[in-house]
Amino acid sequence: MSMNSFGHLFRVTTWGESHGPALGATVDGCPPGVAIDEGMIQHWLDKRKPGQNKFTTQRREADEVKIMSGVFEGQTTGTPVQLMIENTDQRSKDYGDIMDKFRPGHADITYWQKYGIRDYRGGGRSSARETAARVAAGGLAREAIKQIAPNVQIIGYMSQIGPHKIDRENFDWSQIEQNPFWTPDAQAAEDWAAYLDDLRKSGNSVGAVVEVVARGVPAGIGAPVYAKLDTDLAAAMMSINAVKGVEIGEGMAAAELTGDANADEIFMGQNGPQYSSNHAGGILGGISTGQDVVVRFAVKPTSSILTTRKTITKSGEETEIITKGRHDPCVGIRAVPVGEAMMACVILDHLLLHRGQIGENRGQIG
Amino acid sequence: MSMNSFGHLFRVTTWGESHGPALGATVDGCPPGVAIDEGMIQHWLDKRKPGQNKFTTQRREADEVKIMSGVFEGQTTGTPVQLMIENTDQRSKDYGDIMDKFRPGHADITYWQKYGIRDYRGGGRSSARETAARVAAGGLAREAIKQIAPNVQIIGYMSQIGPHKIDRENFDWSQIEQNPFWTPDAQAAEDWAAYLDDLRKSGNSVGAVVEVVARGVPAGIGAPVYAKLDTDLAAAMMSINAVKGVEIGEGMAAAELTGDANADEIFMGQNGPQYSSNHAGGILGGISTGQDVVVRFAVKPTSSILTTRKTITKSGEETEIITKGRHDPCVGIRAVPVGEAMMACVILDHLLLHRGQIGENRGQIG
Amino acid sequence: MSMNSFGHLFRVTTWGESHGPALGATVDGCPPGVAIDEGMIQHWLDKRKPGQNKFTTQRREADEVKIMSGVFEGQTTGTPVQLMIENTDQRSKDYGDIMDKFRPGHADITYWQKYGIRDYRGGGRSSARETAARVAAGGLAREAIKQIAPNVQIIGYMSQIGPHKIDRENFDWSQIEQNPFWTPDAQAAEDWAAYLDDLRKSGNSVGAVVEVVARGVPAGIGAPVYAKLDTDLAAAMMSINAVKGVEIGEGMAAAELTGDANADEIFMGQNGPQYSSNHAGGILGGISTGQDVVVRFAVKPTSSILTTRKTITKSGEETEIITKGRHDPCVGIRAVPVGEAMMACVILDHLLLHRGQIGENRGQIG
Amino acid sequence: MSMNSFGHLFRVTTWGESHGPALGATVDGCPPGVAIDEGMIQHWLDKRKPGQNKFTTQRREADEVKIMSGVFEGQTTGTPVQLMIENTDQRSKDYGDIMDKFRPGHADITYWQKYGIRDYRGGGRSSARETAARVAAGGLAREAIKQIAPNVQIIGYMSQIGPHKIDRENFDWSQIEQNPFWTPDAQAAEDWAAYLDDLRKSGNSVGAVVEVVARGVPAGIGAPVYAKLDTDLAAAMMSINAVKGVEIGEGMAAAELTGDANADEIFMGQNGPQYSSNHAGGILGGISTGQDVVVRFAVKPTSSILTTRKTITKSGEETEIITKGRHDPCVGIRAVPVGEAMMACVILDHLLLHRGQIGENRGQIG
Repeated sequence: MSMNSFGHLFRVTTWGESHGPALGATVDGCPPGVAIDEGMIQHWLDKRKPGQNKFTTQRREADEVKIMSGVFEGQTTGTPVQLMIENTDQRSKDYGDIMDKFRPGHADITYWQKYGIRDYRGGGRSSARETAARVAAGGLAREAIKQIAPNVQIIGYMSQIGPHKIDRENFDWSQIEQNPFWTPDAQAAEDWAAYLDDLRKSGNSVGAVVEVVARGVPAGIGAPVYAKLDTDLAAAMMSINAVKGVEIGEGMAAAELTGDANADEIFMGQNGPQYSSNHAGGILGGISTGQDVVVRFAVKPTSSILTTRKTITKSGEETEIITKGRHDPCVGIRAVPVGEAMMACVILDHLLLHRGQIGENRGQIG
Repeated sequence: MSMNSFGHLFRVTTWGESHGPALGATVDGCPPGVAIDEGMIQHWLDKRKPGQNKFTTQRREADEVKIMSGVFEGQTTGTPVQLMIENTDQRSKDYGDIMDKFRPGHADITYWQKYGIRDYRGGGRSSARETAARVAAGGLAREAIKQIAPNVQIIGYMSQIGPHKIDRENFDWSQIEQNPFWTPDAQAAEDWAAYLDDLRKSGNSVGAVVEVVARGVPAGIGAPVYAKLDTDLAAAMMSINAVKGVEIGEGMAAAELTGDANADEIFMGQNGPQYSSNHAGGILGGISTGQDVVVRFAVKPTSSILTTRKTITKSGEETEIITKGRHDPCVGIRAVPVGEAMMACVILDHLLLHRGQIGENRGQIG
Repeated sequence: MSMNSFGHLFRVTTWGESHGPALGATVDGCPPGVAIDEGMIQHWLDKRKPGQNKFTTQRREADEVKIMSGVFEGQTTGTPVQLMIENTDQRSKDYGDIMDKFRPGHADITYWQKYGIRDYRGGGRSSARETAARVAAGGLAREAIKQIAPNVQIIGYMSQIGPHKIDRENFDWSQIEQNPFWTPDAQAAEDWAAYLDDLRKSGNSVGAVVEVVARGVPAGIGAPVYAKLDTDLAAAMMSINAVKGVEIGEGMAAAELTGDANADEIFMGQNGPQYSSNHAGGILGGISTGQDVVVRFAVKPTSSILTTRKTITKSGEETEIITKGRHDPCVGIRAVPVGEAMMACVILDHLLLHRGQIGENRGQIG
Repeated sequence: MSMNSFGHLFRVTTWGESHGPALGATVDGCPPGVAIDEGMIQHWLDKRKPGQNKFTTQRREADEVKIMSGVFEGQTTGTPVQLMIENTDQRSKDYGDIMDKFRPGHADITYWQKYGIRDYRGGGRSSARETAARVAAGGLAREAIKQIAPNVQIIGYMSQIGPHKIDRENFDWSQIEQNPFWTPDAQAAEDWAAYLDDLRKSGNSVGAVVEVVARGVPAGIGAPVYAKLDTDLAAAMMSINAVKGVEIGEGMAAAELTGDANADEIFMGQNGPQYSSNHAGGILGGISTGQDVVVRFAVKPTSSILTTRKTITKSGEETEIITKGRHDPCVGIRAVPVGEAMMACVILDHLLLHRGQIGENRGQIG
């Protein structure tokens, strides 16, 4: 019952603080025989890496991953894979302000209330830097998925920033890699750039919505009634720093629909069942339908802003704080590869679990 | 790694099918010395019971709970508590239609694809009847919470039905018990009654949003970074039948806020920290702040409606189906006590977990 | 993290007290499509049932199992299987003596010290009656194993009673079913009968050693380094009431061997590797070799004897106790089907786990 | 459900191979505020380190531990503690022989059969080198125990080597640190030295029995019925490389006792219940009695000996192998600190668990 772990058979434990010697992911349960090297994982870490454009923090972190165990001659062996990222920049800084004051919107105060001690440097364990370990684990999961379900594709993108949503009419998969927001709507990318630039200059921040889609997931994975595919995805996404809401398929909007509008009717296609629509987000009763698995999550605005906020100190005195330093005006951007990584881990986990529960056979239709 | 279980130290495993001999909850980890009897649990089951007004299904189920173990002379002993509900009405029916056809929006097709066998009677394991077991477990959790954190209060209510939201200006806690929707907005209750009556007569259904609040939760419970209080709540709520989205505090709307609008500023009150607002929903970094813990979830419209829908049979032939019988026009209503039960289980679990992790002491402020 | 559960994918949670309304096993993770009915499980319960000969307690318990969920039209559906045994004989008795006094060698005192409350009737949760639920779960596991690894056979027997061991020269599998000790040594069975009869008449009891063998287990199951096949077997057997030692293969005697005497040399047989001996008990590095898996455990003598023993009361007064009633002179006898049940559950669990970890393929030799 | 993890609330995941870049332990659930530094952990690693006398392998491994996370300003913070030991000596060697041949008594063949790939260098993951990570975790556990139950002392020693047992009459705690066998019997230490010297020179090896005692454990810890203190100890010890048997208290010898000889009678002492003897090994019904917790385990002789043994190759050809190199003639010696470490982890885990289950209060006697 490790609180820093997730997954059933593909089990990821992350460890490490923002400003400690290193952080990483101890990955247990990766199947043997998966071809992997550090470059394949680095690819995804680079996607998350800060400082790549003016919309992400200008801090420089190498985020270079090292495989410390579980891989032999280029293949996983079935033993734990330790993925470690050393914190290269740990020089002593003046943390005076955040050492004693609790930053509003951050976990400073609750870590203190829970533990009575906290590593305040850069947020310590509660820093979004922890997500680098998830992205590393997700990179490994992606390669393992190829072995078991080679048709699976996992793609994340931003679908909203502040009040500005993408226009679904403009949705173009090929655009996602073409803009700093990983958004499929080229027009939105342009508009958002201007909007975010203004925000950044004013020292403010804004929230966002990230959507992650898994395509090609075979029907039948998921484990009712408490390790449902959607349950595990909701937990996975909600565990990401700053996430405040998670939706599957229609999501919160399902509340507004009537039964006849919401039903995804079923037809018989060449390769099995087909559906008239995907309100369900590819999941019924916690089990995949074979349609796209669609998850969406809201990321709150960065709490580190250049406006003075009221707060208290450890000793209970009222005071003010302003969070200096270079921060992401919209952490939602860098949450895209994190969401993808979580999706990859959950999908792999359920592919393995299904095999353990059922073997390779399952109910055939037609 | 039971797939039909949830919770860390207060661990609930539900079992049983809609039309089998019985269903129930095997509850492990309930603290000893909790005063409990069947009536205290029955109270909550009666809240969920169908047939109480015209807005819920007219089926009659006694839903009578029996305590089969773990209680001695009116107190829990620390051993597993078995809560069993016999299915009184199992008479043989003509299930011909749903035996071979998959109902759109139901788990019929995915259970078949996963398992290659399914108990089609009333949805079998995927029936919402399973939530009765959760409500029973939640009733026990509520009594255990009283022992550990007597100030905690858990209250659920409907905040939206179809497109109609409550008016927050009308919010009145005392109204919740006064109307069939358990809504705090008396005006909404009236309007919704008319709206839902029309829907019901037309054989249609509609979605809803349920909000559950835990008041009086001490600061410091929750377990970062993957057993966060919000993570566990998201999983708990998403595991309820028909739920498609979960929000904490500001929820999906957090995407639209700027950093200065979203920050909950901190002050020093008589009994510890106070906040200017509760965008965070009482949770920072996965740990409770001491504010109200606020969770919201969307329930999709009942898929069983009186409109003919296209579907396929087990052998892959295209056909049509109409789901006869008496169904809830809005399952969201009966989801209120279920959401409360899940909240109670999660809060108790984290109260116990905190004690195991930290003991009774924690960081003091002021 | 249920404390009353064991198993990874085939997960068994037992519940119930000796003199409560019922006890049972909630079995999660049983594969779908296993043909099962109550009679197939009852067969194994009858083997454990008391009162079958003069060497077991003369209490009469029907121990009739009911399948309450998870089975449809004679097959498991992949959902939790609830196996319930009602306690038919719960009439009120005079428990005065054990209500306040702690029986030496029993868990009376420690349950009190842990929980501050205990169901003293018949030992409550700590009664060996709990093993009936294990035997029921084991009966289901046996049928599930047939589906996955049909060559597996699980056989338990007594190999020692008090100081009297079987003569391995007399070992005859066909004798096991022919005597009340389930021992493969016909001569021992005769000698033990006389020995135990004397003990029984004097109101004393004695310990025993039970050996359980799983034959036909495929090579390659087990999960290093903490869910090793031998680790899980050791835990499973040690969890049985009154067990004080567990051995794999050579067991404690391995301490006395030199390296050259202990090595099981490897040859190449028709169907794969063969070994010159089986000191390892069929397990190397926590993974099965394909040889017989051999586990042995020692059961202490029944603590309920007709000799007066010194003890204390709940309030700390020194006193004496004599445990009246009809008890087993050697609980080791009825531990044989319990050991078999635990072996069956562990083997099934690891067969499923291997499939989840590796799929059907593994390293081929030759 | 990580297979490379153990513990409920104090959860240890080990990772790493014998000849990979590093190995370590990811420790989750360590309470906050435990004073710790690398030196305090190194102390225990040095006890296990090879090459300290002629009875242990002459290989030189620095086994230097680094704390990579979870500690801030000399105290644990409640977040995961990563303990890493880099493998300093990984130079390329000629592994030709063991690359293709399976060493009898080693896990070479079963890892191959399970995974279809194995890191054969020094045994890879199945090397006893993995136990260094356990010892590191145990060092941390010892410090955490001091915070919760400062009277607990954990002491291991050898009680048998080959056929030679200690004389209990000679038992002297103060001798344990005085001889290379960590044995409390000074005479035995002398005799064993001569015996083992002969064995070593002949290139042979021998088994041993290690006993580990936890003194000062409060009554009431343990969690029936499947996470019993003895169950968890049995699993913990059986998971150590080369262990073939585990005993609690009287152990296998309990089989030979009669009920009147085996009962530990109860008296009332100054500070609570006292017992006339400790056949139970400090555990009744899986819960501690407050007496010494006594565990014993048998370690088989090192399989790496200088005698030629018959085996097969990966391609199934029969051949012979001789395991060159410098090996421990009795791995039991270095198993002493490993057994202590496992005891420390299990005791801490159950101290935390008890707090989570019960809080600080429990049943008082007298």
